Amino acid sequence: MKDRASVVLERCDRLAGISEERGAITRPYGSRAMREVNDLVSGWMREAGMTVKRDPFGNLIGLYEGTGEKTLVLGSHLDTVRDAGRYDGTLGVMVVLACVEELRDRGERLPYSVEVVAFADEEGLRFGATLLGSSVYAGAFDAALLDLEDAGGVTLSRAVRDFGGDPDALERATRANEDLLGYGEVHIEQGPVLDEKGLPVGVVTAIGGQSRLVVRFTGEAGHAGTVPMERRRDALCAAAQFVLDVENAARAEPEAVATVGEISARPGASNVIPGEVEHSLDLRHPDDASRERLRDRLEQRAGEIASSRGCAHGWRMRGETPAVRTDPQLTALLERAVESVGLDAHRLVSGAGHDAAQVSALAPVAMLFVRCEKGISHHPAESVDKESVSAAIQVMGRFLTLPELSSSSTPGEST
Amino acid sequence: MKDRASVVLERCDRLAGISEERGAITRPYGSRAMREVNDLVSGWMREAGMTVKRDPFGNLIGLYEGTGEKTLVLGSHLDTVRDAGRYDGTLGVMVVLACVEELRDRGERLPYSVEVVAFADEEGLRFGATLLGSSVYAGAFDAALLDLEDAGGVTLSRAVRDFGGDPDALERATRANEDLLGYGEVHIEQGPVLDEKGLPVGVVTAIGGQSRLVVRFTGEAGHAGTVPMERRRDALCAAAQFVLDVENAARAEPEAVATVGEISARPGASNVIPGEVEHSLDLRHPDDASRERLRDRLEQRAGEIASSRGCAHGWRMRGETPAVRTDPQLTALLERAVESVGLDAHRLVSGAGHDAAQVSALAPVAMLFVRCEKGISHHPAESVDKESVSAAIQVMGRFLTLPELSSSSTPGEST
Repeated sequence: MKDRASVVLERCDRLAGISEERGAITRPYGSRAMREVNDLVSGWMREAGMTVKRDPFGNLIGLYEGTGEKTLVLGSHLDTVRDAGRYDGTLGVMVVLACVEELRDRGERLPYSVEVVAFADEEGLRFGATLLGSSVYAGAFDAALLDLEDAGGVTLSRAVRDFGGDPDALERATRANEDLLGYGEVHIEQGPVLDEKGLPVGVVTAIGGQSRLVVRFTGEAGHAGTVPMERRRDALCAAAQFVLDVENAARAEPEAVATVGEISARPGASNVIPGEVEHSLDLRHPDDASRERLRDRLEQRAGEIASSRGCAHGWRMRGETPAVRTDPQLTALLERAVESVGLDAHRLVSGAGHDAAQVSALAPVAMLFVRCEKGISHHPAESVDKESVSAAIQVMGRFLTLPELSSSSTPGEST
Repeated sequence: MKDRASVVLERCDRLAGISEERGAITRPYGSRAMREVNDLVSGWMREAGMTVKRDPFGNLIGLYEGTGEKTLVLGSHLDTVRDAGRYDGTLGVMVVLACVEELRDRGERLPYSVEVVAFADEEGLRFGATLLGSSVYAGAFDAALLDLEDAGGVTLSRAVRDFGGDPDALERATRANEDLLGYGEVHIEQGPVLDEKGLPVGVVTAIGGQSRLVVRFTGEAGHAGTVPMERRRDALCAAAQFVLDVENAARAEPEAVATVGEISARPGASNVIPGEVEHSLDLRHPDDASRERLRDRLEQRAGEIASSRGCAHGWRMRGETPAVRTDPQLTALLERAVESVGLDAHRLVSGAGHDAAQVSALAPVAMLFVRCEKGISHHPAESVDKESVSAAIQVMGRFLTLPELSSSSTPGEST
């Protein structure tokens, strides 16, 4: 019989073949590929001895009954970005499924039930809004989002219905939390820290907050050959100065990251001075106050640069997400599980957003990161090694059987 | 009867209505609009007492016979950029046509013939290669260009034939220069100098040389939330640093202009660190050696920036055009003509390329710039005032009748 890590990796390979795009992994919410993936994973859940249902959004929920009243939720997501890797989200669901299979194979019932949730939309590829599946689950879904349209003009409301869900039930679909012991999520790190430290897994202490902005500099277009340098109001030079200030400011602020990932210059011809430049700005920090200070300082800086160059500037918020601390007690249990299999329980902050951030409104959360090669993610080259997957299965298996988890009180209650 | 400046402005308005795009002025080489414009201008030339022919490229050539053997050529172009203004090129043809009409109205024959050339492709909108019409005329046409394709896959060779020309005759279509006294071109300045100085016209001493490049910085893409600042190889930060160095280097070099007009970041998502940035670089200087020094210094700088950031850089030449000095003697005559109508003969350098640069290989050239409002060009807002147009007509009329022009020697011969 194959070892469980090999089964997990094979399942990730198999799910990678289910896509809306030939030769690439692309699974947007509500797609044929998502339906097929949900069906396949449902089957595996049933084989693992779980009862399976779908909530009104299409999140897949498998229950492995325990002997007590309480429930521990373990989950991640099955949708992907465009041209994705095969592990982001998927690996987390497959690892906890393997842990349930371990219990079934041993014929073991825990003193609490294990609920495995595979969220149907974390990446937001189709409608541009992230964490939709877990927001429904955690009671944070905003019904105004139902009017969002995909690139083909289909509303989210229509897509939910087409996916077999019920858009009108989403705001009432919140998971009741009276029985919840907590929520655990396994996810690839999507960063280089564990790979560099040679550690297979790590324990997440916080999920950083984010500010997402659009910055615009408006100067004056002109002929590249005829307007003297001292007469120019070049919007791209202003933006270039700001991009470097963003980099410097983030370097000077411990734990901050700041990125300008998109940029466009108009009119955009090689022989025309740019009259307008628009670019994205993505700011993240584990501490909200630090992120807000950085954001405000950069807004001021954009204004200074613009006015020093006779340009105007625009500053538009696309969205902000506060930082989430994982639950100290549940996280301490996860650390103990890591150490009990002979590994360092390295603590790290997640710069990426995760379903756990939404679920934290409902229950104490803990997260285990799995090493991914060179930290590459959201890319076909995304890669995990079998040793790390094996470690994650072992750690989560140990975590499930820690005596503290089956005590009657919720770990978070005494904090 | 209307004054000549009003007629010139009305004709520019009328030609502006002949376009391939509704609501915009767009006249690519070989288009229906260019055919219509050539037909209309042919008619005006004939009414002005000229005999009219087209060369194998479709350049329109009108001849106002003189009493002697020599010929003075006056010209500019009738094609446009996309969504152009109404004066770039067109005004120059209309002004010299008005001067010939003045001669006809006075029943005056000059001691030399006046040839008015309306070039059929200066802007290079359709095939991406500029100054095609004047390169044929001046004997600098490269037959390899016949294989260029437009956006619809039509070759230049096919387009020349469809326009009634003969692609096989282009290399032999050079204007013989034994009889040439010189070439004079009237053109809007496309820059702000004359407008700022409050001068209706100016005399061009040189047409700046150009280097057109594509610069690429290659770093490493990564997740905007998970790669720490000190681990990044952000291609956009490298490009931003270079854009500012380009600006500083051009500011420090008198008469230089340098422009980054196009930029793209890949993969180009707000939450992904740019792994590759490509941008244009346009360098111009009236002195070739200075431009080449600036170009080489910037190439070295791009390499330094790239290596200091763990990035690679690419440096690809799109094309270079050497600077052209206008003919000192012909230019001195033009200055005298300007002064003789009571205006300052302000000398200036053209940062934009012009047909005169090509024709300079064939004959001595001189250029008269006409003030355009705020220096705006290649834009629907391109504007000239009637006073400046009137001045240009007066100056060129005076220029034609200067006694030195009708002397038997070519002005350039004694230099």
